[in-house]
Amino acid sequence: METTNVKAFGTDSTTAPLKEMNIERRVVLPKDIEIEILYCGVCHSDLHTARNDWGWTSYPVVPGHEIVGKVTKVGSEASKLKVGDFAAVGCLVDSCRTCSSCKQDLEQYCLNGWVGTYGGQDKHLGGFTHGGYSEKIVVDEDFVLKVPANLDLAAVAPLLCAGITTWSPLRHWNVTKGSKVAVVGLGGLGHMAIKLAKGLGAEVTLFSRTPGKEKDALSLGADAVIISTDDAQMASVAGKFDVIIDTVPYVHDINPYISTLAISGTHVIVGYLGGLEPILNTVPLILGRKSVAASLIGGIAETQEMLDFCGKHNIVSEIEIIKMQEINEAYERMLKSDVKYRFVIDMASLKK
Amino acid sequence: METTNVKAFGTDSTTAPLKEMNIERRVVLPKDIEIEILYCGVCHSDLHTARNDWGWTSYPVVPGHEIVGKVTKVGSEASKLKVGDFAAVGCLVDSCRTCSSCKQDLEQYCLNGWVGTYGGQDKHLGGFTHGGYSEKIVVDEDFVLKVPANLDLAAVAPLLCAGITTWSPLRHWNVTKGSKVAVVGLGGLGHMAIKLAKGLGAEVTLFSRTPGKEKDALSLGADAVIISTDDAQMASVAGKFDVIIDTVPYVHDINPYISTLAISGTHVIVGYLGGLEPILNTVPLILGRKSVAASLIGGIAETQEMLDFCGKHNIVSEIEIIKMQEINEAYERMLKSDVKYRFVIDMASLKK
Repeated sequence: METTNVKAFGTDSTTAPLKEMNIERRVVLPKDIEIEILYCGVCHSDLHTARNDWGWTSYPVVPGHEIVGKVTKVGSEASKLKVGDFAAVGCLVDSCRTCSSCKQDLEQYCLNGWVGTYGGQDKHLGGFTHGGYSEKIVVDEDFVLKVPANLDLAAVAPLLCAGITTWSPLRHWNVTKGSKVAVVGLGGLGHMAIKLAKGLGAEVTLFSRTPGKEKDALSLGADAVIISTDDAQMASVAGKFDVIIDTVPYVHDINPYISTLAISGTHVIVGYLGGLEPILNTVPLILGRKSVAASLIGGIAETQEMLDFCGKHNIVSEIEIIKMQEINEAYERMLKSDVKYRFVIDMASLKK
Repeated sequence: METTNVKAFGTDSTTAPLKEMNIERRVVLPKDIEIEILYCGVCHSDLHTARNDWGWTSYPVVPGHEIVGKVTKVGSEASKLKVGDFAAVGCLVDSCRTCSSCKQDLEQYCLNGWVGTYGGQDKHLGGFTHGGYSEKIVVDEDFVLKVPANLDLAAVAPLLCAGITTWSPLRHWNVTKGSKVAVVGLGGLGHMAIKLAKGLGAEVTLFSRTPGKEKDALSLGADAVIISTDDAQMASVAGKFDVIIDTVPYVHDINPYISTLAISGTHVIVGYLGGLEPILNTVPLILGRKSVAASLIGGIAETQEMLDFCGKHNIVSEIEIIKMQEINEAYERMLKSDVKYRFVIDMASLKK
C-alpha cells in the first residue's frame, strides 16, 4: 500500500527518551479521513507504554491518543467531515464492528479486539499503529469525532481520553441532576470527572488524601472536599454517594470509600489495573447492596455525545501547553504529579 | 405488657444443643397478627447464630426465620389477613419505616436498623426477638406475607429466606427472559436461585466444584453444569453470563467467575461475609465494565412479589421434613451439606 512519510516523536526502547523519528501513514482510503494534528494531550498511558510498564509495548512506539486537528483529505466515500473541518481522534481507530459489543456502540469492549490509536494491530500497513505525537494521522471516518466549534481546541484534546473515561461511567451508572457523586484523586481524570459530573447536575465531592486541594477543587466545580485520611470527615459522608469515580492509578485501599456509598451505590475504578489490596470486605457490600465496578474509556457514539455535551456546557480540560521537544521533561513532571491538569502538545512545534 | 407463654426450641449458650424452652409473646396489638407456626425452615444463619459464629448472638436464642403458619388472632386495626388464613414471616419483623430505604420498600437496608425475626431488638418486650422454632409468633401485619393457596405449605417456608435472598438480586439486576444466569453452589440458596432464574425465563448454568451434581441440577431446571475446577469447561463459558448469583458461604476465589461474565455483567455475592481472598484483580473488571456486588435478603413488598410469582409458576423449595426434636442432628448434617436442599421443621412435633 502506498504511504506518506511523516514526522513523529517516539522511542525505540524502554529506556531511551522520546526523539524525532519518521513513520508511514497510509494514503487515504475511500472511508478515511486525513487529519493534520494541531494538538495532542499527554496521557499517563503514553508514559506507561513508552516505558513498557505494562509489558506489552512493541517498539518503536509513537504515543498519543488525545488528538485534535484539521481535516486535510477526505476519502471518496467518507461524508462525516470535509476538508478544513476540525476533527478529533481518541483511543480507538478501529474495531471488529460485528460483535455484540460493537453493535451496541461499545467498541471499547470489542470482543475481537479493538485497534488502539497507538500500539494496536495496524490492519492496513501491518505492524503497529502510531499515535498522535506526529504531524498527521489517517483514520476511518467511523472513528473520527466532530469538535464543537465554540471550544478551545487545545483544551479539547484531553477530553478524548480523560474526558470519555470519566464520562462513560457517569452515564452508565445514571448520574443525573441531584445525584451524589464523589471523585477519588485530582489529576487529569479526576478534574474532568468533577467538571462532567457537575455538568450533569450532580452534587460533587472530591476525596483527597492530603489537605491543600480544596481551593482548586472548588474552582473546578466541586461542592466539597473530604480528606480521606481524616476519620471524622469520612464519617460525615457515610452512606452518602450514589457513584464514586476512583481515578487513582496505583494500588490503594478502597474499603474506606465503600462505607461512603449509599444503598445500591457503585464504586467505579477507572485508573488502577491490578489486585485490590488490602482485600475487599464483602460485609459492607452485602449490608447495602453495593457494587465495585470498573470501566474503560468509552465508545465512539458516547465520545461524540460527551464532546457535544462539553460544547453545550462549555467544558474543557485545564491544560498546560508544551512543545513536542519538551515531552521527556513533561513525563518526569507527570511522575511527580506536577501538572494542572493535563499537558497538551502544540504540534506546530514538530514542524520546526 | 401482657404476654403469652409459648413453647419454643432454643439454646442458652454457644456450645449447648438446642432444647425445649418457654418464651413470651406479646398480646396482639391493634396492628398485629398472631400466627400459629406450622412449618419453619432451617437456614444456615440459624446454626451460625445458635453457635455465635458471627460474634453477635445474645442468649437465650430461638432461631427460625422461614415461617409459615395459620392466623389465630388479628388486631383491631389489622386488615391484611383474617383468622384461619395462611401467613408467612421471613427475616424481618420491623424496621424504622421512615428512612429513605424503608420508603423505597428496602426495609432490609433500613438506615436505622431493621428488627430481625430472631436476635433483633424487641421494641415491645425489650430484650431480643425470638424466631420460628416456636408455637406462635406475633408480628405487625406490615411484616406478614400472604401465602399462595396452591403451594405446599412446608415447601413454601424456605422461600422466606433462601427464596427472597436469590430473588432480590435476580430482580435488581434485571434478569428476564433470555438472560444468561449462572449460580455458584447448589445448596439451599443455590437450588432456589436455579428455580427462580429459570422461572424468570433465563438460561441457567450451575457452577459446581466437583462432578456429580449434573442430574440434580438439570432436574431443578438448570440448562447446564460447568465444573469450575476444569479449565476447559470454564473457557467454554468465557464472557457468557449477565448475572452470577454466588451462594457459597465460605471464602473462595471469585476471579475465575469474573472471566465468565459478559460485558457489563455482575457477580453478586449473597452467601459470604468476609474478606475476598485471593485478592480481586481489577483488569478483567476494567476490560469488560464488570461489577462485583452483594445483596441481602429482600424487602417486604419484594418478598410478597416473589411469593406471588412462585404461586403463579408453582415454585417451591426441595425439602426434607424433620421434627423439632431432630434439630441438633439436622445442624450436624447441614455442616456436611447432607441435605437436599432445605430442612423444614414440622412444628406439630413441638406440641407433643
